Amino acid sequence: MEYRIEKDTMGEVRVPIDAYYGAQTQRSVENFPIAQDINKMPKEIIRAFAYLKKAAALTNLEAGVLPKEKAELIGKVCDEILSGSLDAYFPLVVWQTGSGTQSNMNVNEVIAYRGHVLSGGKLTDKDKTLHPNDDVNKSQSSNDTFPTAMHIAAYKILMETTIPGIEALRNTLAEKSRQYMKVVKIGRTHFMDATPLTVGQEISGYVAQLDHGLRAIKNTLSHLSELALGGTAVGTGINTPPGYSENVAKKIAELTGLPFITAANKFEALAAHDAIVEAHGALKTVAVSLMKIANDIRMLSSGPRSGIGELHIPDNEPGSSIMPGKVNPTQCEALTMIAAQVLGNDVAINVGGATGHFELNVFKPVMIYNFLHSARLIGDGCHSFNDHCAKGIEPIEANIKKHVDNSLMLVTALNTKIGYYKAAEIAQKAHKEGTTLKEMAVKLGYLTPEQFDEWVRPENMVGKLS
Amino acid sequence: MEYRIEKDTMGEVRVPIDAYYGAQTQRSVENFPIAQDINKMPKEIIRAFAYLKKAAALTNLEAGVLPKEKAELIGKVCDEILSGSLDAYFPLVVWQTGSGTQSNMNVNEVIAYRGHVLSGGKLTDKDKTLHPNDDVNKSQSSNDTFPTAMHIAAYKILMETTIPGIEALRNTLAEKSRQYMKVVKIGRTHFMDATPLTVGQEISGYVAQLDHGLRAIKNTLSHLSELALGGTAVGTGINTPPGYSENVAKKIAELTGLPFITAANKFEALAAHDAIVEAHGALKTVAVSLMKIANDIRMLSSGPRSGIGELHIPDNEPGSSIMPGKVNPTQCEALTMIAAQVLGNDVAINVGGATGHFELNVFKPVMIYNFLHSARLIGDGCHSFNDHCAKGIEPIEANIKKHVDNSLMLVTALNTKIGYYKAAEIAQKAHKEGTTLKEMAVKLGYLTPEQFDEWVRPENMVGKLS
Amino acid sequence: MEYRIEKDTMGEVRVPIDAYYGAQTQRSVENFPIAQDINKMPKEIIRAFAYLKKAAALTNLEAGVLPKEKAELIGKVCDEILSGSLDAYFPLVVWQTGSGTQSNMNVNEVIAYRGHVLSGGKLTDKDKTLHPNDDVNKSQSSNDTFPTAMHIAAYKILMETTIPGIEALRNTLAEKSRQYMKVVKIGRTHFMDATPLTVGQEISGYVAQLDHGLRAIKNTLSHLSELALGGTAVGTGINTPPGYSENVAKKIAELTGLPFITAANKFEALAAHDAIVEAHGALKTVAVSLMKIANDIRMLSSGPRSGIGELHIPDNEPGSSIMPGKVNPTQCEALTMIAAQVLGNDVAINVGGATGHFELNVFKPVMIYNFLHSARLIGDGCHSFNDHCAKGIEPIEANIKKHVDNSLMLVTALNTKIGYYKAAEIAQKAHKEGTTLKEMAVKLGYLTPEQFDEWVRPENMVGKLS
Amino acid sequence: MEYRIEKDTMGEVRVPIDAYYGAQTQRSVENFPIAQDINKMPKEIIRAFAYLKKAAALTNLEAGVLPKEKAELIGKVCDEILSGSLDAYFPLVVWQTGSGTQSNMNVNEVIAYRGHVLSGGKLTDKDKTLHPNDDVNKSQSSNDTFPTAMHIAAYKILMETTIPGIEALRNTLAEKSRQYMKVVKIGRTHFMDATPLTVGQEISGYVAQLDHGLRAIKNTLSHLSELALGGTAVGTGINTPPGYSENVAKKIAELTGLPFITAANKFEALAAHDAIVEAHGALKTVAVSLMKIANDIRMLSSGPRSGIGELHIPDNEPGSSIMPGKVNPTQCEALTMIAAQVLGNDVAINVGGATGHFELNVFKPVMIYNFLHSARLIGDGCHSFNDHCAKGIEPIEANIKKHVDNSLMLVTALNTKIGYYKAAEIAQKAHKEGTTLKEMAVKLGYLTPEQFDEWVRPENMVGKLS
Repeated sequence: MEYRIEKDTMGEVRVPIDAYYGAQTQRSVENFPIAQDINKMPKEIIRAFAYLKKAAALTNLEAGVLPKEKAELIGKVCDEILSGSLDAYFPLVVWQTGSGTQSNMNVNEVIAYRGHVLSGGKLTDKDKTLHPNDDVNKSQSSNDTFPTAMHIAAYKILMETTIPGIEALRNTLAEKSRQYMKVVKIGRTHFMDATPLTVGQEISGYVAQLDHGLRAIKNTLSHLSELALGGTAVGTGINTPPGYSENVAKKIAELTGLPFITAANKFEALAAHDAIVEAHGALKTVAVSLMKIANDIRMLSSGPRSGIGELHIPDNEPGSSIMPGKVNPTQCEALTMIAAQVLGNDVAINVGGATGHFELNVFKPVMIYNFLHSARLIGDGCHSFNDHCAKGIEPIEANIKKHVDNSLMLVTALNTKIGYYKAAEIAQKAHKEGTTLKEMAVKLGYLTPEQFDEWVRPENMVGKLS
Repeated sequence: MEYRIEKDTMGEVRVPIDAYYGAQTQRSVENFPIAQDINKMPKEIIRAFAYLKKAAALTNLEAGVLPKEKAELIGKVCDEILSGSLDAYFPLVVWQTGSGTQSNMNVNEVIAYRGHVLSGGKLTDKDKTLHPNDDVNKSQSSNDTFPTAMHIAAYKILMETTIPGIEALRNTLAEKSRQYMKVVKIGRTHFMDATPLTVGQEISGYVAQLDHGLRAIKNTLSHLSELALGGTAVGTGINTPPGYSENVAKKIAELTGLPFITAANKFEALAAHDAIVEAHGALKTVAVSLMKIANDIRMLSSGPRSGIGELHIPDNEPGSSIMPGKVNPTQCEALTMIAAQVLGNDVAINVGGATGHFELNVFKPVMIYNFLHSARLIGDGCHSFNDHCAKGIEPIEANIKKHVDNSLMLVTALNTKIGYYKAAEIAQKAHKEGTTLKEMAVKLGYLTPEQFDEWVRPENMVGKLS
Repeated sequence: MEYRIEKDTMGEVRVPIDAYYGAQTQRSVENFPIAQDINKMPKEIIRAFAYLKKAAALTNLEAGVLPKEKAELIGKVCDEILSGSLDAYFPLVVWQTGSGTQSNMNVNEVIAYRGHVLSGGKLTDKDKTLHPNDDVNKSQSSNDTFPTAMHIAAYKILMETTIPGIEALRNTLAEKSRQYMKVVKIGRTHFMDATPLTVGQEISGYVAQLDHGLRAIKNTLSHLSELALGGTAVGTGINTPPGYSENVAKKIAELTGLPFITAANKFEALAAHDAIVEAHGALKTVAVSLMKIANDIRMLSSGPRSGIGELHIPDNEPGSSIMPGKVNPTQCEALTMIAAQVLGNDVAINVGGATGHFELNVFKPVMIYNFLHSARLIGDGCHSFNDHCAKGIEPIEANIKKHVDNSLMLVTALNTKIGYYKAAEIAQKAHKEGTTLKEMAVKLGYLTPEQFDEWVRPENMVGKLS
Repeated sequence: MEYRIEKDTMGEVRVPIDAYYGAQTQRSVENFPIAQDINKMPKEIIRAFAYLKKAAALTNLEAGVLPKEKAELIGKVCDEILSGSLDAYFPLVVWQTGSGTQSNMNVNEVIAYRGHVLSGGKLTDKDKTLHPNDDVNKSQSSNDTFPTAMHIAAYKILMETTIPGIEALRNTLAEKSRQYMKVVKIGRTHFMDATPLTVGQEISGYVAQLDHGLRAIKNTLSHLSELALGGTAVGTGINTPPGYSENVAKKIAELTGLPFITAANKFEALAAHDAIVEAHGALKTVAVSLMKIANDIRMLSSGPRSGIGELHIPDNEPGSSIMPGKVNPTQCEALTMIAAQVLGNDVAINVGGATGHFELNVFKPVMIYNFLHSARLIGDGCHSFNDHCAKGIEPIEANIKKHVDNSLMLVTALNTKIGYYKAAEIAQKAHKEGTTLKEMAVKLGYLTPEQFDEWVRPENMVGKLS
């Protein structure tokens, strides 16, 4: 491979001859040979940096501290980064400095060098049109840009991937709930037969879970909307022009179309990432909901002949390499694996969030890596589950009817007629002797057959149907 | 020990002769000999049951399904339970049935038997004034009462213990922040010397963390305010009179003074406890904040001679059994241990929340046990830390001044004057040769002494002080 | 309450007049009002301290640094502590200094003051026979005694509670496995019908899990057997007589009957508690196993009429306060809640273990609190589950036979006869048309009825029975 | 893109015309559009499959159930997979069916189709030389191959990456410990000044942690060495020739050079992955150690002027985009972020391990994904930390000497001379009045200057140096 020589404040470094990055990016590549094939800094962070670098350049321009040509050049490269065309020049991994400084410098270098080329220069020119630190990073520090990129990336993925995914699934389930609101089925508590409810009622519980989860996520957006930018090195805003914080946040809001504002307290915004911890707390709540829902659907569709068998779900693929004709609830499995992952990611985020010191939390990359992973998995996972499973859910009415007809827990309807103890006696004896409730109720002399038929009607035991 | 014989639907059981409980409580004592000395069902849950049983009795009375004498008798015993005088009769542990049925029946039995005695009967009477199932549990199921008790207990402890504890600490820190807003100190990022800020600014970051944490907790109260009561066995409300759900929630709101309402979806309220998962997600966010804050204070007060030594904290007790005169940041240690516990409790809650099936989550006791534990620890821990540490925090100005004067990172102020690279050269050479920045800046010919004194002034590097 | 005045190096403190403790215990009570009713320092730690204080006194005696009368007096009080008669004088909580210094001093004070009374003195005497620091704590520091107590307590509970509990359950399951080794049942993979195995085979998997878990726990005992005692303040052994470390470990081994040795590296033994982290890693592995086993049994015993219904488990108590005659898998529920708790405790321990600094980890109390909790819960939980559930497991042969006879996955036996694709066709069409495999196989012309009967025999599909 | 048509038991599927895979791989690509750019099934699993497919083919050959040509063809493609040349044909993600069936079929298809081409056929031929199910998957099921691949991949990465990485770091630290064994420094407990020890002693504690960690990992290898292969669908070994299990394990041991054996109990090997849970328990123990070690080094090297400043670590890169000349402990930051990740991964594995049902755990992909991630991160992270930080650690003797000379805790040496209380008085007053211990000791009249000089000598307070 051919190289060119680049310099930083520590000296010379050999850089791939065509790379639009410089000495500091290269140092990081060499100093952190950790899982480089699988743990690149997430592209969402790189894109978020493009928004904020462009916004900073424009704000610096307006503040009169950056010439127009430079500001426009920076903006032009940022647009290229957003298009994805420069992705190859962001080789750094998550496992670098905990402030993300190296990724900030990677972005600074790419903008400076690509900008230089765009303006007619060559990568091997000694002096370049844009300086990574003095121009591209002007009025900024890694310490305020990286957390700003974290919030931009987190907010965007929640809005664009996570929430739409959950909503799609929620809407399908709401439709299923309406559709099957009158299909009476046996309830199960403690995994044991219980009093009846309807298929629609059961599914309405899932919808309520997701509605609450969506609300929980949205409640955390306000903290995520606060941007650190303008705090620079330690939160005091050293080396920024007047009004910079508010103006740059406004610019970012315009560029992204999201309601970002400048953080009320910049010290918190650099030294802690409780916004990420809090928002991921909502994601893990949704993961808990999804685990429950997917488990239920997996179990309700179990069989085909020796399980519970009350729901049909789509047959998407052959389920077994050895058992011919087997079909499995694979979408439930993917979704529950995702839930397990999110519960793990939550702990990584908590540990990172709790271990910051003084003016800077240096677990930034690991925190946002896990956050984006969870947000993506929940969003993609809900879409996949929705498209390939939820939309195809149908009740298997024959099995449902059989189960509800057999149930001993219909006896509960008699509590208010003959008392809990006599009702229990009927159920216990019916179970022991293998008879129906009605036979036993009459045999014990507690009811007439007519009373039983009037009082014990599953369809009357499910309350008001909404 | 002397016994009397009690019966339930399964037969006879020997119960301690004076115990105000019956067969089902006794069965649970015998069937679950698990950590009985350390893991009793939390008293907050027992008290919450007292509220809801009283509310249910009153609501049943108004609905005409329970006679006035019975309703009043139930209410009277509930008041006794709330007073703590019957605590000895709640011997059950957390590790019982996952629905909490046994604790519900324990409450039902205590109310029925104590009520019978209050009305003039004896424990050995065969027929009692109140029936645990038919009267005390009327219009209820364990499946809706236990989650109702969970929400009542959780909401109450947050309002009465957790939030006040956090607020007390927050207010002390806010006062300290104002008090020391002008004390300029060195900043530290990556645990390394950085540009200056003030003691008050640093502490203001902690205040912002706690403010966000308080908001996060309060955001979760709306889900906790929803009560399952009225859902009975599976959420359909079987065996409840019309209007019961709304009315009983209103009664509970009156009795507790908290804004409880009936859950919009009872199926969710029984089958999932995402409200607990979500609210504990806020508690773990606060735990993360407290870990950060307590770590900072521990480190800033380290020394007395060979540490950082910028803060003085109160000397509360001799710190060592072997090192005479040693004083340690013990309140920081207790608070960080609490944070570790809360992060663990969060996982227990997540696993419990994710593992419910069908119409009932049966990890109720372990979930609320961990929730109440965390809520209590954070509340008590903040109060203790506030009273015995935070209130006594004082800057050690001599050390603070020495550190800021020595700092090489003051060079940052020169970026906008001479550029990042020359500024770096000054700092690196001063570090290498052990000189001051000023000496090196002048020696290198980049500045005059006068320029240095004008441009590099720590008090001008901390931004606008709020 | 009446008080007496006690003094420590910081001054005077009022102490309950009859308390066998002094100033430092009282300071801790007052300085740490955190969950005092529920989180006392575990009694296992107090007892472990009694062993080590006695061993230290004897070793000091032999080394000639403590007179015989004092050593014997210390030993006498330690025996009283072990008997439990002094439990009331250990009022401190887990949430104290992270070194456990205050609990060490609590033990020192109780020994000194009770010893003084035993030797004829009064609590109000100004000079006492034994000095808490100079005599009872001789050749010790909190920093080496507390971790020593942690290892003693952890090792003992594993040997006395945890391992016996797991073994009891393992042995019952092994017996059930043998007993039902020939009962052919349907297998389930992905919660879906699969090829058959026997009830005994299925249970043998549980036995293998517990055998591996027991081995995993035992593998961690070697690190737990290393004692920190002799390291004193920072691991260097300052203020100890020659040979002290080895001798005191030997004494502790004698007193406890467990193979304790002195830690090879005392710096590690004070500064880190990886032994606790590692050993709890084994406990969480067992928790994972127990969750799986208890879930299986809960699901296999589901019904009675609309579930899987292949296992009968004991009816221990009425299962519902509203549904008469309901019986639930309550022991499974308690055990899975325990598993959830252990998974949470693991995280608390990890965070504590990871957050030590320099020469001392100061998360000692929270780590051992969680460890002992898990060890106790697993031990007690396995015993309870064994006695009240596992011993009573019986196959419900009618349901088992029905399920295996219906299964479409018996078709797998045909793979090697007619190929996977034709076998799949048979299964899929039989499922679609609701026929038996045999009917469809013959109808499709792939087999004769005789071939089917010869090749598709569940009892030949379960391999060699061990 | 051009396509060809492939078929499976469910029908036709369009597959990229040149892809060496078939219908089932394609279905999975389409059915699981979840994080496809970042969460491919780890390459370690694909390689492990190559070993086991080759071993199975050879074993089938020897058992007479697969012709020589087919067995050799299968082996040839497996070698290609191991070389990495077919990587492009493994497009599936972690988030698929929880049994990993689709990845097993992906491997089966690639082997069958690539084998067909190698033997002179074309991808578009209707009949192919090798059948994915009947030939390549012969005597196998996804249910036993995937867990076998998990154990092969896990064992290999531990031996090849994780353990060597830890050992390299351990050896460097051991050398540093020897080198600086006599450099006396102040100890710190509770982050506060304590009695002295040497730099070498302090580092020896880290070495002991890693030694214990390595032992902990090695203890878990025995369970990982057990292979599920031969259990096929549910553990009974249906459709395998006699002796197959033992023989195929032997073949895998030969091919990999690792001591694999057949699992004693196949039901456990399919239905649970406690081996992964247990082994990751050891990895998280090491993560805890690394967090401690890296934190210590970060803090000991803090400064350069206003921190602790006792260790010098290499300056690898400019540390700040805004603060010129700043150097940060970036390797410590990467390593502690890795530790946070591993603690999170542990929880994901626990949840997956605990949530298996009946004859099959269907959290296989998420479990091995997290395991391989942690094993890789620890291995790579230790190597990076070793090469770029640990090797360059040097004590900064001037600071070290200053700290130890100033320390008040040297007073501990006087306990055995004048008692704890008088020693405490000296330290407290010296602290208050800002004098030296010696001045205060003499002033209080407890010692002569000569006694002080004789008794209080740091180099005599560090015990025997090993």
